[in-house]
Formats: sequence, structure tokens, C-alpha cells
Amino acid sequence: MNAVLRHADFRGETGEAARLRVRSGDHSGPTAGLAPGYVQANMAILPKALAADFQRFCAMNPKACPLLASSEPGDPTLPILGANLDIRTDLPRYRVWRDGELVEEVTNIKAQWRDDLVAFLIGCSFSFEEALLEDGIPLRHIACGSNVPMFRTTIPTQASGRFHGPTVVSMRPLKPADAIRAVQITSRFPSVHGAPIHIGKPELIGIKDVMQPDYGEPSEIRDDELPVFWACGVTPQAVIAAAKPDFCITHAPGYMLVTDLKNSRLAIL
Amino acid sequence: MNAVLRHADFRGETGEAARLRVRSGDHSGPTAGLAPGYVQANMAILPKALAADFQRFCAMNPKACPLLASSEPGDPTLPILGANLDIRTDLPRYRVWRDGELVEEVTNIKAQWRDDLVAFLIGCSFSFEEALLEDGIPLRHIACGSNVPMFRTTIPTQASGRFHGPTVVSMRPLKPADAIRAVQITSRFPSVHGAPIHIGKPELIGIKDVMQPDYGEPSEIRDDELPVFWACGVTPQAVIAAAKPDFCITHAPGYMLVTDLKNSRLAIL
Repeated sequence: MNAVLRHADFRGETGEAARLRVRSGDHSGPTAGLAPGYVQANMAILPKALAADFQRFCAMNPKACPLLASSEPGDPTLPILGANLDIRTDLPRYRVWRDGELVEEVTNIKAQWRDDLVAFLIGCSFSFEEALLEDGIPLRHIACGSNVPMFRTTIPTQASGRFHGPTVVSMRPLKPADAIRAVQITSRFPSVHGAPIHIGKPELIGIKDVMQPDYGEPSEIRDDELPVFWACGVTPQAVIAAAKPDFCITHAPGYMLVTDLKNSRLAIL
Repeated sequence: MNAVLRHADFRGETGEAARLRVRSGDHSGPTAGLAPGYVQANMAILPKALAADFQRFCAMNPKACPLLASSEPGDPTLPILGANLDIRTDLPRYRVWRDGELVEEVTNIKAQWRDDLVAFLIGCSFSFEEALLEDGIPLRHIACGSNVPMFRTTIPTQASGRFHGPTVVSMRPLKPADAIRAVQITSRFPSVHGAPIHIGKPELIGIKDVMQPDYGEPSEIRDDELPVFWACGVTPQAVIAAAKPDFCITHAPGYMLVTDLKNSRLAIL
């Protein structure tokens, strides 16, 4: 979920070229660093019977679940995200869940695909991290090559049907002036989590120990830094897991869909 | 310098109407609350011999010295800020300085006016405070009816000729989510100090005791709040005082120029 811009190897690669390498099996690892500058997306696939509730859940929780696109039931293409795109083959690794239990990890879902499935593609922090790094704001977890620390909070999401639960946040330690600049920059990117939802006082959002994240790895917070918290794409994953749908498919963490959209085109201003 | 929007009496008053009441002597007090929604400005008047250096000082320090307009030498009108406007008569109280010493406070400067004087009108926090209050963000000093706390910092200004010195900041305690929203809102108003320049850790900018301001009055900071710091219009006043020009005139603190500009028109987005 991190390490954006650290892989110089793939500079100049288009989103479509990255997808074709994944589809052919040439690339089977995490997608961080592929097709720099192109939007990568989290994915959740649900049966149509649950899709309306989840679509509404995303609409009501846009900071945690910024929906880039959802598919027509049974249709594995998503023209809005890329012309030559098949969600059954274009992610390097998928997780298949039954009744809330992970049953297998696979490299395509052609065998699992059904006519009633709806895919949800959700924005990810890669896009705004690229904008922060390009502005000269250092990100500790990327510099350290570690995963961003993530925490369950006491901030509830807006429930929709079976989908409900706490907001999960990611944390990046920043110097105060960089924190202010990061608010400005990420406010321009509402479709990839937008502005932070908290800053400075983890205990106020139910985080007991900021050095013990619930997901990812800890990041040191220095004396001249503030912890800055963004709503995180793990929120919908946790909410779906808690809802225990009879069937669903997600991307494996770090193995995202690379799209044809440029990150810069997500900026609203 | 505060208490914006607390005086319901003057709702509907235009900037021009407020100036005419001041000019006639009908209004002789501070200008907070006059002509709600209209921009008020700090003023400094310098001899032409110093004007170029000060104009450049403002240009290089736009967050502390956001220049709304400066006059032609000897011309007491400022059409860009109001059609019927005379800076010699339209502020309720002026301070006259010689060699860095305050020599008199007067209610007009017709007798002191000279052909070589240049007036500088500088944006003030009234405008962004109005935007914050209208968004539902409470401001402690206004709720308490006290003056905003202000501090000299270790953040230097960019020097220009004789004009140099530390940045002075104002502090407003805000809940973290309100602090994030306040960054967004005030970023839209670069001509009235813009985004905060610091947040959360006063000691990092040379403030030893946040309850002992250098100017204004202290504001309580509660456990669920962060101190948020904006560059402050006292910076140019302090810089001019330190430069000890042989002659200058300023507005008396709180007795500002009311203009014909709407606060909302200062928003860049």
C-alpha cells in the first residue's frame, strides 16, 4: 500500500501496459511502483443482492470509501477506468471469501466469476502520496520501506444495511508546516480519501498507543512532528469482513487494479 | 481586532455607509462589527523615500503582510478599495509616529497629510474569522469577547532595506477536525493572511508559554484542542516600529479602514 515512486524501473509505463503485464502473468507481485502517475484502486466484488447497500455505504462514507467506479452486474469491464480492462484477470492476486472466511487466494477469478457480481473500485492513498512526495513532503513509511500504520478508531461510519463499523485511519507523521501543506494538497483529491480527518491527538479518536497500529507497521513520530490521520481504504474491507456476505472477492492487500486514469486528473482544483 | 459578527446592529450597512459615519464623527469607536461582510484593512503610511522598501517587504512576506492596495504618493484616495474614500478622514483613530515614537493619536490626519506620503492597506484576520464563524467553527477569543493572543516567533521575515524582524502570529485554539477545516477555509483567503503557518507545537516556533502572549489576551487551550497559528498583521507594525522612520502614521489598533470590498470576494476559489 506504499512505496509509491520508489521504483524507477517502470517510469513511462502506461496503466494499460501494466495491466497487460499482470494479465499475461509477467508481473505477479504487488503493484506499488507500476505505471507511475496512474491511479491504482482497491477492489471489492459483491453479489448483486448486497450491491445496493454497499453502493449506498460508499456514498455516505466518501472519505473512507471513495468510490471511483462500480460495474454493471456480471460485466467484468469498466470502461470508465480503462479501455482494455478485465477485472477478472488484471489484478495480480485476489482473495475469495465465503461467509466471511478467506477460502483461497488466486491469480485470476475467471472460474469464480458470476453473472450477479458487482465490482467496486475504491480510491487509494497511493494517489495522494504521490502528490505529497512531488511537493517535497517526506513520508516516513515510504522512506523506511515499511507499510503505513493503520488504526481502528472510535469514529463510526454511516451504516447502510449490513454494512457498518468503525472508520480505519492511516497515520503519517509530519512537521507542522508540512501537515498544513498536506491538508491543502490532499483536499484537492476527494476521490482518494481527501483531507485528513484528524491531527495531533490520537487519544481523541480512540487510539490508545500510536506505536501499536492495528494494521501495517509502526512509524516513529519525532518531537517536531504531529501524527496526521487520513480515512483509509481498509475501512470498507473491515466493514465487508464484519458483514460476512455469503460470497465476495477482494484484491489481496497491495495487489491493486492499475487504471488508465492519471493521478493528476483526480485533483478537483 | 476581533468580535466580528457579534454586533447585529450594523447588519445591512455598506462599507461606504460605515466610512461616512466615521468621516462625520458619528462613529468614533473601534470598527469591529461595522458593515458586516465588508473587508476591513490595517493601514500604514510612510514617506515615499521608504515606500519602495516597504512595498517590497510586503511582496516578500505575503502571509504576514498581505497588501490589499497602496496609494499614489500624496493621493488620499484609493479607488480600488472604495469609490468615496479618503484615508485622511475615514478611519476613526490614527497614530502619528516620529523617529519611532508615538507622538499623538488623532481622529483625522488632514493636518498631517503631505504630498510625499504613501498609504499601505493590509488585509486583516476579520475577513477569515467571518468565514470560519459562518462555517460553524467557534473562535474562543470572540466567544469570550477578548482580543486574540499574539506572539513574536523565531520565524524570520524576509528583510527589505530597513524593514526586518520576526513574524508575529495570532493563535486560535481549535478542535483537530476544525483545525483541518480552518486550513481549507483560510487557504482560500491569501489576501488576509491565508492558511495557518503553524499548528500544535508552540515551542517549535519560539513560543515559551502559550498562555503569555506578547500582544492581546490569553486564550484557554482545552485538552481536546490544538493551538493553530496564523501570520498576523502586527508583524508589519512591529517591523515599522523597529525601523524607526522619521515619520509615519498607522491606524490605532482596532480602528480600521472599512472598504467597499466584500469579504467573500477575497476568496480565490
